[in-house]
Amino acid sequence: MDEKTVTGWWQTALVRIRPGEIALRGYPIEQLIGSASFPQTIWLLLRGELPTPDEAALLEAALVAAVDHGPQAPSIAAARMAATCGVGLNNAVATGVNLLGDVHGGAGQQAMGMYTDIADCDLPLADAVAEYRRWHRYLPGFGHRFHPRDPRRDPLVGLVEDAVAKGVITDRYLKVAMEIERQLDPVPMNIDGATALIYASLGFPAELGRGLFVLSRSVGILAHAWEEQQSGVRIKGPIPRPLLADYTGPALRDL
Amino acid sequence: MDEKTVTGWWQTALVRIRPGEIALRGYPIEQLIGSASFPQTIWLLLRGELPTPDEAALLEAALVAAVDHGPQAPSIAAARMAATCGVGLNNAVATGVNLLGDVHGGAGQQAMGMYTDIADCDLPLADAVAEYRRWHRYLPGFGHRFHPRDPRRDPLVGLVEDAVAKGVITDRYLKVAMEIERQLDPVPMNIDGATALIYASLGFPAELGRGLFVLSRSVGILAHAWEEQQSGVRIKGPIPRPLLADYTGPALRDL
Amino acid sequence: MDEKTVTGWWQTALVRIRPGEIALRGYPIEQLIGSASFPQTIWLLLRGELPTPDEAALLEAALVAAVDHGPQAPSIAAARMAATCGVGLNNAVATGVNLLGDVHGGAGQQAMGMYTDIADCDLPLADAVAEYRRWHRYLPGFGHRFHPRDPRRDPLVGLVEDAVAKGVITDRYLKVAMEIERQLDPVPMNIDGATALIYASLGFPAELGRGLFVLSRSVGILAHAWEEQQSGVRIKGPIPRPLLADYTGPALRDL
Amino acid sequence: MDEKTVTGWWQTALVRIRPGEIALRGYPIEQLIGSASFPQTIWLLLRGELPTPDEAALLEAALVAAVDHGPQAPSIAAARMAATCGVGLNNAVATGVNLLGDVHGGAGQQAMGMYTDIADCDLPLADAVAEYRRWHRYLPGFGHRFHPRDPRRDPLVGLVEDAVAKGVITDRYLKVAMEIERQLDPVPMNIDGATALIYASLGFPAELGRGLFVLSRSVGILAHAWEEQQSGVRIKGPIPRPLLADYTGPALRDL
Repeated sequence: MDEKTVTGWWQTALVRIRPGEIALRGYPIEQLIGSASFPQTIWLLLRGELPTPDEAALLEAALVAAVDHGPQAPSIAAARMAATCGVGLNNAVATGVNLLGDVHGGAGQQAMGMYTDIADCDLPLADAVAEYRRWHRYLPGFGHRFHPRDPRRDPLVGLVEDAVAKGVITDRYLKVAMEIERQLDPVPMNIDGATALIYASLGFPAELGRGLFVLSRSVGILAHAWEEQQSGVRIKGPIPRPLLADYTGPALRDL
Repeated sequence: MDEKTVTGWWQTALVRIRPGEIALRGYPIEQLIGSASFPQTIWLLLRGELPTPDEAALLEAALVAAVDHGPQAPSIAAARMAATCGVGLNNAVATGVNLLGDVHGGAGQQAMGMYTDIADCDLPLADAVAEYRRWHRYLPGFGHRFHPRDPRRDPLVGLVEDAVAKGVITDRYLKVAMEIERQLDPVPMNIDGATALIYASLGFPAELGRGLFVLSRSVGILAHAWEEQQSGVRIKGPIPRPLLADYTGPALRDL
Repeated sequence: MDEKTVTGWWQTALVRIRPGEIALRGYPIEQLIGSASFPQTIWLLLRGELPTPDEAALLEAALVAAVDHGPQAPSIAAARMAATCGVGLNNAVATGVNLLGDVHGGAGQQAMGMYTDIADCDLPLADAVAEYRRWHRYLPGFGHRFHPRDPRRDPLVGLVEDAVAKGVITDRYLKVAMEIERQLDPVPMNIDGATALIYASLGFPAELGRGLFVLSRSVGILAHAWEEQQSGVRIKGPIPRPLLADYTGPALRDL
Repeated sequence: MDEKTVTGWWQTALVRIRPGEIALRGYPIEQLIGSASFPQTIWLLLRGELPTPDEAALLEAALVAAVDHGPQAPSIAAARMAATCGVGLNNAVATGVNLLGDVHGGAGQQAMGMYTDIADCDLPLADAVAEYRRWHRYLPGFGHRFHPRDPRRDPLVGLVEDAVAKGVITDRYLKVAMEIERQLDPVPMNIDGATALIYASLGFPAELGRGLFVLSRSVGILAHAWEEQQSGVRIKGPIPRPLLADYTGPALRDL
């Protein structure tokens, strides 16, 4: 067990660190600072190469679209409560991010998988979608329990259509998403379906759908934790203090 | 205890949500998508107003600079280990973010506090710095245990100087940081000192220094967790399995 | 939307709280303090009723058995690293617990599911196990990558046999586990298989297998975080600082 | 950098692991299983030696007393929300534990510090307490915002008095706590003050006050997460869905 074995256990293709030197995917950090945008840098680290400006613009729009959806979301609420408990802002953000699991943060990832499954199917598109619906009661990325029409759908789909027209991306996934929406009418695509359409069209694997959502929503989580921290409330519960939670267990009894 | 009291407990100035409507700080989300950059949106949520393009460019450079520093950092290592334990990518990112505490992620925030304390001091600048050093053995944001000269210092300070020359920001904090560096010579500013200089010059409160670092480093944390997850290693420890940790406690004994 | 609706959203059968009154599953807390053991209280909260002393003793042995397995486990290592980053002990413990996912902390839960599946099978036991093995390459709870024979197996199985002899539990799951071990010979049961045997025999649902492991291992996680915190090391990485992680990405290149 | 250096970086006095061997603080695990109670094992790992049965009984009572205080506590509420988001039970427990910070989980630790400061003071006890009150507006561990008299105070203080009478512990901290309560009359000791009295009397350092509270409250956090998970609710927010959070920011405006 020599040094080589130990360091090999912690090898990475992401970043090269030497005394006085930091390079991301081969690019010296001093060349990236001031030249690469934040979304380009995100893409570079996750994918290995820099995107074109048009690709980066599409990614950026998706990152902007999902930053926040208010304190009713459990991830935001948990981060706000954490901020009142005497932990650091980083701990509050981590608390919120930890909740973006399969159910709360996974719809985009699942929609990417669905788009790919349907796009890979041998059947004509309309049949492929119909067949998919036969086997899946719930189609991720479509419909919203709160918004009759998600206000983020139109601008995002519009940007995808523009990017297809400009040849930035192919229409492989756009066609799939449009056909699903047609068959589900009047249930429209939601934020998860629309960002999934962008991420899939840009070539991200489905698992990174959740990863990119995490980066985006971290912004809202941080902003809410910070707003709450400044309020001065201590130990904030889910409902104001005079309201007791209901008890539904056995009546009082002796040991 | 009526509806108003309960919702008032969860009030926010960040986002207005109605059926079919989402507005960040008053701006409809459909106007922001495709128009506002990701850094501008971060600024908008944290500060309440949109930055100018020049301000956003400075913020963006700082966010790019700190995305990653390799798997030797405990935040990255913990996220990589988490990724091998059968949890979601969001849980792995949360694990890394949770470690960006006072010691690992707080230097930028502390440097912002130091810059402000010195800038607010009545004494001439050189005396103020000297006095500050008399009372503080450790000056956050200067020196690096690994890099003789942090490669991120020069490009970041260069951008600050340009922004001062263009009138984007004042030289209030630049002068302080330069004087500290002069007195500590040959110990140069590091990434924390340089990003703190940018964040303070842009008017962010010190506490958000850590918040912005969290958003930046989340990118590296995600990329490393994802790289590790793809490796297929299961239950990754800090050192390869044949190496046992050392035991320094009492010899074997009977109960 | 009145008060009743809001509190109903947060109803629980676990604990009744009134001014001056706390009752767990109906029992006043002042009667439990000094009378109920810690394992009995764990059982009461999770199951709704108090266990007999014999049942509690069996649960207690399983909780003791799994408290720690050293700093090579990623959950422990992550907690130790967290403790050097300037976060609270609670944040360090949370970091470790967060890693006890499907792969690192789920084997016990999976073994409970396997025992139940086999016990529920119509076939004679030996055939049921053989059939199960035909469909599952990996049997959770058996074999250990480090211990040729897990030293926790014998005392735990011995306690189960005693409890069966005393009529505390039935031999339903013991027979299954023994038959699996017989067919896998010479691969013995490990800690996960043995604690799963206890938890299943005591009537816990499989999902709580992980929950009970979390409570048990939290002890080791806390003890390691505390030991590390006292060492004074700051920002502890996975390997000592002079060792660099290996870089396997592209060679240096210009933007 | 040889093997010795690397393993030394991960040394511990807690547990000795060899193939086929696990020993906690020198005691073979197979001797502890079935013999040591769970609280004794907690003490052994944290302190290095086994407690007497009387010491363990006092520790056990404190651990039982603090297991739960209902879903109004943010740690419990956050864990319940996590359980509805598609993450593992371990992630839900970690979410709750992460919130037991200085404000929500630190009162016991702070009370231990206060007891020690006063006990170490040269002044007569009544004067020491009066002097301490002069300098501290808030005395941790006394008064409760919900309970006029915390129902856990009397049984815990009673056990401490019994243990003093039996010579298990000295009255060093009991005298301090009683004098504080006398001077604050009619504000009584609360759960944090009472468990702090036990932990301090048993010789635990103040920092472990929070650690022991974490182990105790983890039980309630797990039980609530489990109860919520079984409810089938998905993406549970802090208030029921028809209630919108209040928006207090700028009116709608165009970009």
